[in-house]
Amino acid sequence: MEENRTLVQRTADRIVDYIVEKGLTEGDRLPSESELMKDLEVSRTTTREAVRMLSSRNILKVRHGSGIYVSKNTGISEDPLGLFFIRDKERLAEDLMEFRLLVEPRIAARAAQRANAEQAKELEELADEVERLYRSGQPHNKADNAFHAKLGELSGNLVFPHLIPIISKAIDTFIALTGNELVEETMESHRAIVEAVKAGDGVGAEDAMTLHLVYNRNRIREKRKGQKPVDK
Amino acid sequence: MEENRTLVQRTADRIVDYIVEKGLTEGDRLPSESELMKDLEVSRTTTREAVRMLSSRNILKVRHGSGIYVSKNTGISEDPLGLFFIRDKERLAEDLMEFRLLVEPRIAARAAQRANAEQAKELEELADEVERLYRSGQPHNKADNAFHAKLGELSGNLVFPHLIPIISKAIDTFIALTGNELVEETMESHRAIVEAVKAGDGVGAEDAMTLHLVYNRNRIREKRKGQKPVDK
Repeated sequence: MEENRTLVQRTADRIVDYIVEKGLTEGDRLPSESELMKDLEVSRTTTREAVRMLSSRNILKVRHGSGIYVSKNTGISEDPLGLFFIRDKERLAEDLMEFRLLVEPRIAARAAQRANAEQAKELEELADEVERLYRSGQPHNKADNAFHAKLGELSGNLVFPHLIPIISKAIDTFIALTGNELVEETMESHRAIVEAVKAGDGVGAEDAMTLHLVYNRNRIREKRKGQKPVDK
Repeated sequence: MEENRTLVQRTADRIVDYIVEKGLTEGDRLPSESELMKDLEVSRTTTREAVRMLSSRNILKVRHGSGIYVSKNTGISEDPLGLFFIRDKERLAEDLMEFRLLVEPRIAARAAQRANAEQAKELEELADEVERLYRSGQPHNKADNAFHAKLGELSGNLVFPHLIPIISKAIDTFIALTGNELVEETMESHRAIVEAVKAGDGVGAEDAMTLHLVYNRNRIREKRKGQKPVDK
């Protein structure tokens, strides 16, 4: 099994090299299983296992009856930091907020400095969508994630958009803990961020994001109070 | 294939649930393949594929002739953010430095506030090891990574140690780009960080880390000069 495992691993590595060399990005189609098998001179079983391995690492996406594609968020798992394995979810929620407080104000500042009118409008529409869902009592996780993801996209830093799955995980953890309690504050601070981005005001966007996150962090701290001291 | 794939996925999820429920952490041993197969009521092939899937997500580590164990850095891949797929490595190096500048000064500050004398000593030994390797012309990536990882460990935030594979990737990218040019500055600023941690001086540790990273970022900018404007 070990030798076979290694051949699968090597085959997977060669497929990854192929993706990088050809500059393929999310949604691009790879050669078929049969073509890969011929090109890489390995068996169908090995090809299939390599493709599966890359699927489980979110590098490839197999659409049956259609083909093999490069995944969205290539190479980033749903839970890139393995936070699922941390058991104390309340402390995790607070510690994630500390992480977000370090990175997201800067992301918002950069987005405000770079976004053109059209991009600012897209951000505004995402904030509106969060609001619409809140008001109608529907789950807003996805829309909230999309709002923060858009800022990462607009930041111009190559790494920041790759942090989005971590931030999404943090938002989900936060919403699971606090429910819908923060509705009004979330909408207000989202709007303040949008206004700053529209105005090209980096400092204003940074401050608005900081306020948004500090408020949310304090909500988590209130939840945790009584269980253990807040200041570690 | 699709149905089988789903069964493998479900089996993998159940193994993950088992790990979380039992509170297993890195190095802990799971039941054997045969026991898992019986417990989960699936075939040997399905069990094996689920274990492989979890190995490729760095959740399990199979040691042949020994057993199935929970991986080091459970659930965090070597490249959690899929940075391998970014082609412009010089811009990546600079953008990673921006990320590090956001998180590592705070990590150093927290470590300084929390570390006891023994932990500060461990950090010092890692700095000494980097220095020894530098002086003798040996590769220092691993030791440099261990120094920064130790600070994450000492920070007391549950999330920060999980960022280490990203920071390691950034250090490797940086060293690949600049080679051994920064030797003296690296050693000096590592020492300044160690001194601040020994003194329990959070502000000093934060500043020393900021200086360390700004210096390194400027080195990357110098490398990139002439290719395109530095300010994006």
